[in-house]
This record gives sequence, structure tokens and C-alpha cells, in this order.
Amino acid sequence: MDIHKTDAQIADALKAVSGRESVTDIFFVACGGSFSLMLTTQYITDREASRINGIALNAAEFTARAPKTLGRNSLVIACSHSGTTPETVEAIRFARQAGALTISLTNVLGSPLDDASEFTIAYKHTPLEMSSHHSAAILSRLALGIVKVREGNNKADDFEAALTTLPRLVDQKIADLKGEIATFAEAHKRDSVIYTMASGSNYGVAYCYAICLFQEMLWIHSAAIQAGEYFHGPFEVTDFDVPFVQLMGVGPTRAIDERAFSFAQKYSRRVTALDARKLGISDFPESIAEYLTPLLFTPILRAYMEKLAEAKGHPLTVRRYMWKLEY
Amino acid sequence: MDIHKTDAQIADALKAVSGRESVTDIFFVACGGSFSLMLTTQYITDREASRINGIALNAAEFTARAPKTLGRNSLVIACSHSGTTPETVEAIRFARQAGALTISLTNVLGSPLDDASEFTIAYKHTPLEMSSHHSAAILSRLALGIVKVREGNNKADDFEAALTTLPRLVDQKIADLKGEIATFAEAHKRDSVIYTMASGSNYGVAYCYAICLFQEMLWIHSAAIQAGEYFHGPFEVTDFDVPFVQLMGVGPTRAIDERAFSFAQKYSRRVTALDARKLGISDFPESIAEYLTPLLFTPILRAYMEKLAEAKGHPLTVRRYMWKLEY
Repeated sequence: MDIHKTDAQIADALKAVSGRESVTDIFFVACGGSFSLMLTTQYITDREASRINGIALNAAEFTARAPKTLGRNSLVIACSHSGTTPETVEAIRFARQAGALTISLTNVLGSPLDDASEFTIAYKHTPLEMSSHHSAAILSRLALGIVKVREGNNKADDFEAALTTLPRLVDQKIADLKGEIATFAEAHKRDSVIYTMASGSNYGVAYCYAICLFQEMLWIHSAAIQAGEYFHGPFEVTDFDVPFVQLMGVGPTRAIDERAFSFAQKYSRRVTALDARKLGISDFPESIAEYLTPLLFTPILRAYMEKLAEAKGHPLTVRRYMWKLEY
Repeated sequence: MDIHKTDAQIADALKAVSGRESVTDIFFVACGGSFSLMLTTQYITDREASRINGIALNAAEFTARAPKTLGRNSLVIACSHSGTTPETVEAIRFARQAGALTISLTNVLGSPLDDASEFTIAYKHTPLEMSSHHSAAILSRLALGIVKVREGNNKADDFEAALTTLPRLVDQKIADLKGEIATFAEAHKRDSVIYTMASGSNYGVAYCYAICLFQEMLWIHSAAIQAGEYFHGPFEVTDFDVPFVQLMGVGPTRAIDERAFSFAQKYSRRVTALDARKLGISDFPESIAEYLTPLLFTPILRAYMEKLAEAKGHPLTVRRYMWKLEY
């Protein structure tokens, strides 16, 4: 994959959005891990767009729901790693038929999703590294790029600049955390349930790790708890031996994370917190730091999962149903 | 509570929405069980409103996120049973300050939420019964009422008519299911994990039962799986002994439920499905049947939970943290 080509693809997509002034709604549609990214993208849109609404929906749900506002005023942004996810391809076809502008991300050019979309952006897949061409980074660049071309919001510039140094920080932190990661893996290798918890820009990361890593790849029961919801139900399952992985972000939702962490670590001995502040995020401009934290947590948590998989003797590549059966 | 007064409160709120033509966005904000209702309300708005966007957010997340579109063009609908939930009261104050029109539902008139809101609607709390004055019913009446007064969409009329007979159907089905409910309770009384699964209008019900009933009231690990997401991660935890409670709706998302059910019941021996069709929903007009299913499932599932609580010797009123500690 040629990263200069990716940059040009992003620029082309943004040019199209800039030219379509009727666009007032963005639907972010995908499935599973790709859908998890859309939760962050909606967050950015909610925070930064004055005149554009964002809504993230699972692709099958989107097509079935058939939002009544969908049409010429809509932009639909989709993502599928293989570009073959049937629900996502169908969602894009449905959206395009309805008159929406369509932009897709995929790892595979020439895939059905690429063919179905007006604009396609190819991304690099590097689970243990961050880069400006990682799918999560591209979606955030796109969201900030849209508010730049449409509303003159210039946070995209700070964000693009930060992406030149963030990858090194990620590599460094994964190296620094080697001991903690090994301890986590040994401590959790026999657990049958591990919860994840986050809020704001990081909730999508918690969701991804609950459904794709714990449930899918490791067959460990899990749920992503929205930290603001924790005190309204989920906290009652907290006990001394119940494990949580909590993401502590920065920005306006940090207080939500801190409140949940403060309680969880008091009643459970098994809370593993990744704190973006302690991981060096404060070196970046405050205006965009909260949008960088998901990009920091994603590869670092992956390192935790790879070590956990090793300690369990259950490689992350193992599946019992996915890609093996008709479903 | 005087139900005629509630009807008048709904009419007053709808009159205000009708008079505020600038309103193009609705934020549905609440916490926990009240938030779960908002997921259905957003679904109705997505399906039925041509020119109004809906977005459901946890109340703490809403205030922290501070959506940039929030202002004179916004309607904010909140719900808190006691009317004292601090995050929800703060969200309404924040929204009103920003110029939004505010409408709240609560069981307690004179509560801080009532005081903070421009319009308040009082509801009846009857977990084992449905009525047109149940919080879930009122929120759906409000969502359909809004598209009626603003866009001339008349589904509200069919919905109001259906609510006159739905309560009897619920009572009848709870009585009919007595044997199944007792069998479920015995079969699940020693389970440490029970998943819920649904899509479309019923996902909020699945979420409510996962976080408020299983996690909060019964201390059973749980997660609400969006049925469209099931095949993109969560389905890998399915095994012969893993229990699922699946809601099978009607309308456009039924195919999503059927696909998930078909897989889950093939690889788990412990799937309990509540099928709205078998529960008699097809007697209602197709145009609104999908909005009635959450109102059918909510009290019926409660009957399952009460029996499960009895079989476990763990009353639904027991808490270890909620209302007992500072948090």
C-alpha cells in the first residue's frame, strides 16, 4: 500500500464533501471492530461540528432502520477490513441509491466495498503500531477534515502534526510497559470474564476489546461498560475478584472515567487502568489530545492481548465459527 | 398519579415542540434503565422523522461531550425515575442554559428534574404491567407525537389506539407463560453469565435487562449483544452451555434477529427466545407493531426475572452499593 496514495484518497474524499454543501448528516456504518471505530468518529463529530450531525450504526441495523433523513443531505462513511462484509457493502449500496455521498475505508482496493463506494480510502493494518494510515487514524483525520472544509475548524492541523510523533510514543510505551503487560497476562490467563470500561472518545476502544479481543479471539466473556452508565447498574457486579480493564482519557469526559475508576479499584483488586496522562498524552495540544487517546490505547492494549493469548496458549488467530462456517 | 394529568402534560409538551419550528435535533439523555428507553426513542425518530435527528446519550456523557449543535435548534428529552439522578438533572440544566427546549419524564413531581425542566411528564411505575402511562409508552407516544405535530406523520394515532388493548395482551401472555417462566428460572438459577440479544426497537430492552436486571439486581455477568454485531465478534463465545435471552421483533430488523437466533440456537442449548409474533403482536397494525414490541417484552421479561430471583433466593431489591454508599 502506498501511503501517498492514501493521502490523496483522503484529499479527494474531503474535496467531495466540501463540494456537497447540502450535507447535514453523517452516518458512520460498519460491523464489529470497524464499527467500534465509528463510535469515536461520531464523538469527534458531536464535539466539533456546529452544523452537521453524526450517528454511528451497525451496518445491518442501518440498512434495516433505513433512517428517514437519509438522502441527498447525507454522507455515509463505511469501513470493512476485507471490503467484503456483506452488511457493509449492502449499506453503502443502499445509501448511494438513496442519493447519499459515500466514502469507504478498506484494506483491500478492488473489493466489493471499494467498487460500491464513490470514494475509497485504503488503510494500513498494523495492530501493534499506530500510524497516520491506520484505519482509526484515517477516520479521525476524515472527521476533523470534514469540519475543516465545511466549517473552518482547524483542529485537523494540530491532529495531523501530532500523528507525526504519536507512533514513536506508542512504540516507546509498549516497550516501557513490558513488565506490566507480562504481569497482566499471568494474572488474567484463567479468567472467564473480563470487563472493559471507558467513556468519550475511548468508549469505542473499550467496545472493540470487549467484542473482538475478549469475546471473539480469546473466548472470554466480556462487556464494554460506558463509564457514565457504570453507577446505574453495572457497578453492582463489581467484586474483589472481578477484572476490569479501564481506559482513562483526557478532556471533558476524564471526570467520568476517574469517578468510575475510583469506585472500581476500591471494590475490585483486579482493575487494570491505562491512563493516557501517564502515557504521555499531555505533551500534545489540549485541543486534540482527547482524539489521540484512542490511537494510543489501541496498539498498547493489543500488546496486552498478545501476551494474554500467549499465557493462555490460545492464539489470537483461533476461531471456532468465524470464516469457518456459513452463517 | 392522575393519568389524565399525564395526558395533559404530554399534550403541553407536544404543543411546545409544535411551536418551536427551529428544532431539528433531539437529544435523548438519561442514565441506566432510563437511558435504555432512549435507545428505542432514538430508533423511532430515525425511522419516522424526515427532518429531525435523534441521538441517545448517557446524561454524564452528554454534558461532558457538550455537542456543538446543542442550542436553540435542540430539544432535549430526559428521564429519571426519582427525578434526583444528578447527571440527568445537570444535563437538563446545561441544555436549558444552551437554549434547548427541555422535556423530562419522572415518577416524582416536585423533584429536582421536574424543577429544572420546562416541561415535565409524570409516569406510572408498574414493572409487571404495561399501560399508556408507563415511562416506555410515554416516550414512544412523545416521539410519535413529535413527528405528528411537526411532520404530519399519523402513526401516533394507531399507536395510541393499540395502547388501549396492549395491556390486556401483556397480562394474558404472562399468565400463559407461567410454565416456561418457571422452567427458565430453575434452569438459570446457578448461571454466572447470561447474555441478552436484540436489534432495532428492542435493543434498548436487551440493554436494560443486561445492566439493570442481570448485573445490578441479580449480580449475574451480562452484556447486551446487538444482533447485527453478533457475527462480528460476540458469536465466538457461543457454546453449548452459554445462555442467551433473545428478543425476536417484527418489522425491518426482524431478519437480523432471525439470523442471530438461527446461529445461537444451533451452537447453544440454552437460548430463550421471546418472539413478538408468537406473543400476538401481529394483531396490531404493521405500521406500528415494531414500536409496540418493547412494551410487550419489558413486563414479560420482568416476570422471568422475578421468578429467577425467587429461584436464586436473591430478591430483585437487594443491592450492595446502590443507594447504600457514596459514589
